[in-house]
Amino acid sequence: MGNLTWTTWLLIGAAFVFFMQCGFAMVETGFTRAKNTGNILFKNFVDFCIGTICFLFLGFGMMMGVDYVAGFVGVPNLDIFSCFNTLFTGTPGTEVYEAAITTASSFVFNLVFCATAATIVSGAMAERTRFLAYCIYSAMISLVVYPIEAGWVWNSQGWLANLTPAFVDFAGSGAIHSVGGTASLIGIIFLGARIGKFERDEKGKVVKVNAIQGHNMTIGALGVLILWFGWYGFNGAAATETGQLARIFVTTTIAPSVALLVVMIYTWIRNKKPDLVMSMNASLAGLVGVTAGCSNVDIIGALVIGIVSGFLVMGATWLLEHVLHLDDCVGAVPVHFANGIWGIIAVGFFDVENGLFYTGDASLLGVQCLGILSIVAWTAVWMMIFFAAIKYVPVMIKYKTVNFAKVAEYAKTWNGLRCNAEEEIIGLDISEHGLTSSYPDFVPSIPSYDGEGEDVDISGIKPAAIDLAPANESKYTKITVITGQDKFLTLKDAMAKIGVTGMTVTNVMGCGTQAGKTGQYRGVKTTMRLIPKVQVEIVVSTVDPKLVVSVAQKVCDDGKYGAGKIFVSGIENVMRVRTGETGVEALTNEPEPTPAK
Amino acid sequence: MGNLTWTTWLLIGAAFVFFMQCGFAMVETGFTRAKNTGNILFKNFVDFCIGTICFLFLGFGMMMGVDYVAGFVGVPNLDIFSCFNTLFTGTPGTEVYEAAITTASSFVFNLVFCATAATIVSGAMAERTRFLAYCIYSAMISLVVYPIEAGWVWNSQGWLANLTPAFVDFAGSGAIHSVGGTASLIGIIFLGARIGKFERDEKGKVVKVNAIQGHNMTIGALGVLILWFGWYGFNGAAATETGQLARIFVTTTIAPSVALLVVMIYTWIRNKKPDLVMSMNASLAGLVGVTAGCSNVDIIGALVIGIVSGFLVMGATWLLEHVLHLDDCVGAVPVHFANGIWGIIAVGFFDVENGLFYTGDASLLGVQCLGILSIVAWTAVWMMIFFAAIKYVPVMIKYKTVNFAKVAEYAKTWNGLRCNAEEEIIGLDISEHGLTSSYPDFVPSIPSYDGEGEDVDISGIKPAAIDLAPANESKYTKITVITGQDKFLTLKDAMAKIGVTGMTVTNVMGCGTQAGKTGQYRGVKTTMRLIPKVQVEIVVSTVDPKLVVSVAQKVCDDGKYGAGKIFVSGIENVMRVRTGETGVEALTNEPEPTPAK
Amino acid sequence: MGNLTWTTWLLIGAAFVFFMQCGFAMVETGFTRAKNTGNILFKNFVDFCIGTICFLFLGFGMMMGVDYVAGFVGVPNLDIFSCFNTLFTGTPGTEVYEAAITTASSFVFNLVFCATAATIVSGAMAERTRFLAYCIYSAMISLVVYPIEAGWVWNSQGWLANLTPAFVDFAGSGAIHSVGGTASLIGIIFLGARIGKFERDEKGKVVKVNAIQGHNMTIGALGVLILWFGWYGFNGAAATETGQLARIFVTTTIAPSVALLVVMIYTWIRNKKPDLVMSMNASLAGLVGVTAGCSNVDIIGALVIGIVSGFLVMGATWLLEHVLHLDDCVGAVPVHFANGIWGIIAVGFFDVENGLFYTGDASLLGVQCLGILSIVAWTAVWMMIFFAAIKYVPVMIKYKTVNFAKVAEYAKTWNGLRCNAEEEIIGLDISEHGLTSSYPDFVPSIPSYDGEGEDVDISGIKPAAIDLAPANESKYTKITVITGQDKFLTLKDAMAKIGVTGMTVTNVMGCGTQAGKTGQYRGVKTTMRLIPKVQVEIVVSTVDPKLVVSVAQKVCDDGKYGAGKIFVSGIENVMRVRTGETGVEALTNEPEPTPAK
Repeated sequence: MGNLTWTTWLLIGAAFVFFMQCGFAMVETGFTRAKNTGNILFKNFVDFCIGTICFLFLGFGMMMGVDYVAGFVGVPNLDIFSCFNTLFTGTPGTEVYEAAITTASSFVFNLVFCATAATIVSGAMAERTRFLAYCIYSAMISLVVYPIEAGWVWNSQGWLANLTPAFVDFAGSGAIHSVGGTASLIGIIFLGARIGKFERDEKGKVVKVNAIQGHNMTIGALGVLILWFGWYGFNGAAATETGQLARIFVTTTIAPSVALLVVMIYTWIRNKKPDLVMSMNASLAGLVGVTAGCSNVDIIGALVIGIVSGFLVMGATWLLEHVLHLDDCVGAVPVHFANGIWGIIAVGFFDVENGLFYTGDASLLGVQCLGILSIVAWTAVWMMIFFAAIKYVPVMIKYKTVNFAKVAEYAKTWNGLRCNAEEEIIGLDISEHGLTSSYPDFVPSIPSYDGEGEDVDISGIKPAAIDLAPANESKYTKITVITGQDKFLTLKDAMAKIGVTGMTVTNVMGCGTQAGKTGQYRGVKTTMRLIPKVQVEIVVSTVDPKLVVSVAQKVCDDGKYGAGKIFVSGIENVMRVRTGETGVEALTNEPEPTPAK
Repeated sequence: MGNLTWTTWLLIGAAFVFFMQCGFAMVETGFTRAKNTGNILFKNFVDFCIGTICFLFLGFGMMMGVDYVAGFVGVPNLDIFSCFNTLFTGTPGTEVYEAAITTASSFVFNLVFCATAATIVSGAMAERTRFLAYCIYSAMISLVVYPIEAGWVWNSQGWLANLTPAFVDFAGSGAIHSVGGTASLIGIIFLGARIGKFERDEKGKVVKVNAIQGHNMTIGALGVLILWFGWYGFNGAAATETGQLARIFVTTTIAPSVALLVVMIYTWIRNKKPDLVMSMNASLAGLVGVTAGCSNVDIIGALVIGIVSGFLVMGATWLLEHVLHLDDCVGAVPVHFANGIWGIIAVGFFDVENGLFYTGDASLLGVQCLGILSIVAWTAVWMMIFFAAIKYVPVMIKYKTVNFAKVAEYAKTWNGLRCNAEEEIIGLDISEHGLTSSYPDFVPSIPSYDGEGEDVDISGIKPAAIDLAPANESKYTKITVITGQDKFLTLKDAMAKIGVTGMTVTNVMGCGTQAGKTGQYRGVKTTMRLIPKVQVEIVVSTVDPKLVVSVAQKVCDDGKYGAGKIFVSGIENVMRVRTGETGVEALTNEPEPTPAK
Repeated sequence: MGNLTWTTWLLIGAAFVFFMQCGFAMVETGFTRAKNTGNILFKNFVDFCIGTICFLFLGFGMMMGVDYVAGFVGVPNLDIFSCFNTLFTGTPGTEVYEAAITTASSFVFNLVFCATAATIVSGAMAERTRFLAYCIYSAMISLVVYPIEAGWVWNSQGWLANLTPAFVDFAGSGAIHSVGGTASLIGIIFLGARIGKFERDEKGKVVKVNAIQGHNMTIGALGVLILWFGWYGFNGAAATETGQLARIFVTTTIAPSVALLVVMIYTWIRNKKPDLVMSMNASLAGLVGVTAGCSNVDIIGALVIGIVSGFLVMGATWLLEHVLHLDDCVGAVPVHFANGIWGIIAVGFFDVENGLFYTGDASLLGVQCLGILSIVAWTAVWMMIFFAAIKYVPVMIKYKTVNFAKVAEYAKTWNGLRCNAEEEIIGLDISEHGLTSSYPDFVPSIPSYDGEGEDVDISGIKPAAIDLAPANESKYTKITVITGQDKFLTLKDAMAKIGVTGMTVTNVMGCGTQAGKTGQYRGVKTTMRLIPKVQVEIVVSTVDPKLVVSVAQKVCDDGKYGAGKIFVSGIENVMRVRTGETGVEALTNEPEPTPAK
């Protein structure tokens, strides 16, 4: 049995990089709100899947094709299909077989890299981008933007790879992260900020920047740690020798550690309290920063790269929010754009072989600047075209006009890129996917309540013999039922049957002395136990409150301790908000709305 | 120092497969309800641990033993024990040493595969299966079912491995997934649907199928992504050459991607909204589908397998729920049973060497059909025996009868397989493990409330000098205390001391103008801050409400702003649900229950 | 292209060990309370990052340095810096180059091990340790404690490595886990128990031990499974031959499986219900126990180690809580201290080459006992010094005294190690990091409420024409508004404008018959749908309740069905807890507090 080669490791490393999809999904989910969770998860799945198909049929050939035109783009081919024939029928060890291995491995490896570039954007543009728009974007970046610029860097015939000295981007600070970061930046410009992010005065000037906190720090931290773990594959997969891999692991460990400490200390001094989320982003920033040079810098280089990354992620976040007033939900622009660029430039300084600080020669630095400028510009131009088309073309079609002033005006209330305000407020889970909640057991009331209960026969039931003051000024009566949560469905149906048209439901804890433990036994404390209950409040006028009581008692009584209590109290008046109706009318059913919806 | 061999990779890949246990645990937890979380997690641990012991002492020998009887079953041996002697004392490189390496590696590798087959079932049968029943099932599948059929496929003497052409199941669509899927199918037939899943009319006809949504989409998605990541080890671990591994990684990436896109597009068109959970299941379906042929099909094959897997997971789900009325909590049958079978058959068509579409020869297809039929039948028969025994034998023992009609009748209310209704409704966390909640900080009231507070001396305290209308018709008074959550324990104890026997507790947000910021300063908005508070509602009749107020004030007053408010209002009457008592009796303690429980 | 060597695997294995940081973070987060989540996550990041810097500049040289003084400590050097020069300029294959590979790989490998030792403590000391104190502790253990004792074991010149027979601790039961465990034990002694953990009578005798349950079993289980997965790297990374790796994987699988089963069965028998959390901890205990001997024991050894580990984790937990009354939040002492020691001693019995049970010779057992005693003593002494300094030095500085009796007295209310009671009660997320909640969407009210709403013009609005009984005895009126959650911000601001100074906010489910579906259509049940709503309760006296109603109606009315309802009822009286004021004064603003805070 043969030995494992460095191409084997390339494949194993690619699996690590695939796992980063999980890291991105968790980071983006944790750092956005719960009402958009299903949507952001879905986007993280779909960009990988769409990317796979696009890269398979077109992207891979354009990036790594052997017929490479003018150092700029490969002629799409189906080498990845045909290499399978060789691998099935060829002889291991022959040149043609080894070439086929390279093709197949390179496809897997470059595909997971491509998917990384694509998925960065979903976090920046979260919580308001239409799902369809995101699907189209995913296809575009995997088909056109990424394969071409990545070919410049990593195809042996790419123009950046053939400069002297050659452009250095070992694992993709530029070719991947700055591309995802640039796309994010263009995206959030076209998209606009989330509702509530910036408060403006009458003149539209931003007077306050609100923090919209993500809903789950644990999931966010899980994502960051999965990313960091996966990054050992991301930076290390292309190594071809153990010494090189060891160097890469060292630099890939040092830069994020230092970056995190820089931000922790800085925020501690400045805000008196160390900032967790910014510190976690700093570790990602350090990882992005060291990605280009992970195999080319030494420990000093990694330390400096990390320190700068720490400051850069804070500065870029501030710039974005407080100066440019752009809304990047998870900080993708500070992490991937700012530090992607920094990573490329840092190599110009710290490359042990050709860096300015080691040789005094600035030619590599020049090449790095030219390269990153080309990559960012290429990405930015295409992204402007794509996002403009996604945003405005549907408006043009809907309103049958190409007058751009009009289109821009119409696009303010409806466009192809962004959900409308109502959808955004209720959350994309409901509006885009019909998913009531991604966490149904944790919303105030349990959604499984939305079903039906037992069919209790309440025909012929009489109003309860409960003493209610007839002289009370209150004409409206509130019945509060506190009972077991499993009774709710049945209670709801029974109430509907006797004409109750509305109720308010709250999950509460009922607290009572344990059955049979009646007294305070010589000063020993009595324990009251807390039991989860549901509290249902019903206000009635025309429906007899005594009937409500008797029906509620019947359906809730299971003969056990803890079946609950019913309280009756007076309400002076009631108003229906939509119509302003008061009194009885506010409590009876609304008329049939007009059919048109 | 030597090099890493493909056996090294087999072990590393086995670690990836172990990690899939984590993926399954997360998928099954995320896609079921919060009240059963601890139980489903525990089942995922325990099947691996029981499987390890069973496989160690018996299963491994039966599967991979060199004394293999009639191509059917190995004679159990302790080779795995004795191979350690060789590894400790032998010389690396010698034949006997290499054989020992193979034995030890093969044990690890086949154990994690066995555990995968076993763990699939926990998801399908979740939320209602007794824990003990699940433990017995785990032992049975690891001792008998899996080792024998997997030996047919992967022991070099197995009868399926010795057909011409040989049965192809590279990584276990049939030997693992269809086995887990078949066990799931038999299991849910014996088990019956969860309460609330199907609504039936008087004749027992199903009139509505309810969706019981899982409680955490993020955890579900995390599980799917961990599974996908682990699948690169699952499908790839047995590779013995880099070209083969590259092919496997390509097909293992393409099939799930395509399957997910198929479901996304289909549900989008059909329901107007793309369905997240079904799409995630589709990616797993694609992975299961491509598992048998991952090393034997080309890209076209992987694409077609993925497309069919997508449709199959949807169709099988529909069939299961709407035609067969079976309740599979997480979709294990559509994913593992339907696609496990499909994966085996697909090889008959798409195997590059022997598949019908490549050779025009149907003999491999025939072998594949024979093989999968044998595996499914073998599993189904044993599972029927096991589940019937688990379900009915305890009933026979309890009621001392073997009259099957009677046993079947008794089993409707109590049997060995399924929890009773009450346990199911309150959730298996409490009923099976005494775990109040797997998420105690997120239930409506904080469980740490269940303790005791400070001991505040309230002896001699006088009723508060609060003005209450004596003429009010209400004979019962509600005191609502809104105070800091940290005061609750003390308040609860103090109330018990003065004779209060019940209260309703809700977590609320108190919202007040900030201390000292008194006015609306020339039109500038005043900020009211929201602070988490606890609201305690107490209704009293014989206990003096003024005493309740004074005691509550004493224990809640910590001298700080935000200590809270106490509101007093009238209640007209109250009823205890269990007894129908009203008025004072409803508010005083219940009598000692009879000792018999 | 060359082949992968065992040093390559050392690096890949180190990545697995890095991933254990994620496992620890999840375990510790899941098994502690939600209010401290951000803090515990941060501590898990920061110990790794601080450890990296400390180990880079000092620790690595002290541990693995070639100039090793008296078998006790290495002379710090910068070999890790200089080895990069060799790796950049040297020739692969030369001796100097291979030595450089070894240095760089060993640095990565030992760093992630060091971080593991450090991070164990954060869980034991969770929920009450100051963040700064933890940072200092992290630096100390990485700078001094770990490098020296680990050098004794793993530096070829270390005194424990040079005993005859040599001390055996293959992967660190002693050098890592017992160190983390000892530090945990000393830490929780100095720290004291969390508020509420132990209840004491007047004499200070503990009368009750409360369980403070962790907030998320799923995240805890995720962490355990990630740790188990990573442990294949932890135990396996240092293997240098496939047969050895296979053995390690087998023992590393068997011990935790058996330990878990032991605890499951024991708790099942004893408590009638199998205990999930203890069982999960048992699997970690088994892993810790087998770590020292994973490469030196056979299957029988692994089985016995696992069985003992299971009992040990239960016994140590009981001892810690019920006898010693120490509060270890996640069970780090039972898992890492007790089983770390057991793992070392077990090798004395079960080492296949030199163990007592295999040779009848107790010399290895003696060496193991000496070694573990030295490691524990070394760690304990330093930890006492560090924790005493962290705890008391700030007290000495603050109160300008070195009188220890006084310092100890002062330290009871304030010290450098532990947060004060108020900080602990509100949670370290808020007090240490200004993070309102790590789960803002799951607290009772949505924090994004803390912002501002639309600016609705309410100038000139008239009191509502709502009929309220003038003769009602209630002088105070409660207005309950039930409306869409998106209206809350605007409502809050509008209320402030008209002089309302407080409100209580609850998330509820509003349940009403669907618009237009008025009746019970021939006995078919009417479906009432549950919609998430916010309930705002306002009690007013001087502010006109009719004005409150009209303003609330104006701001909540969006012209849509479901805009909500407003209920008006009477309140008899109200008291402000802090001042005891009743009536109107309790409802008007509080005076400006004195400036001093």
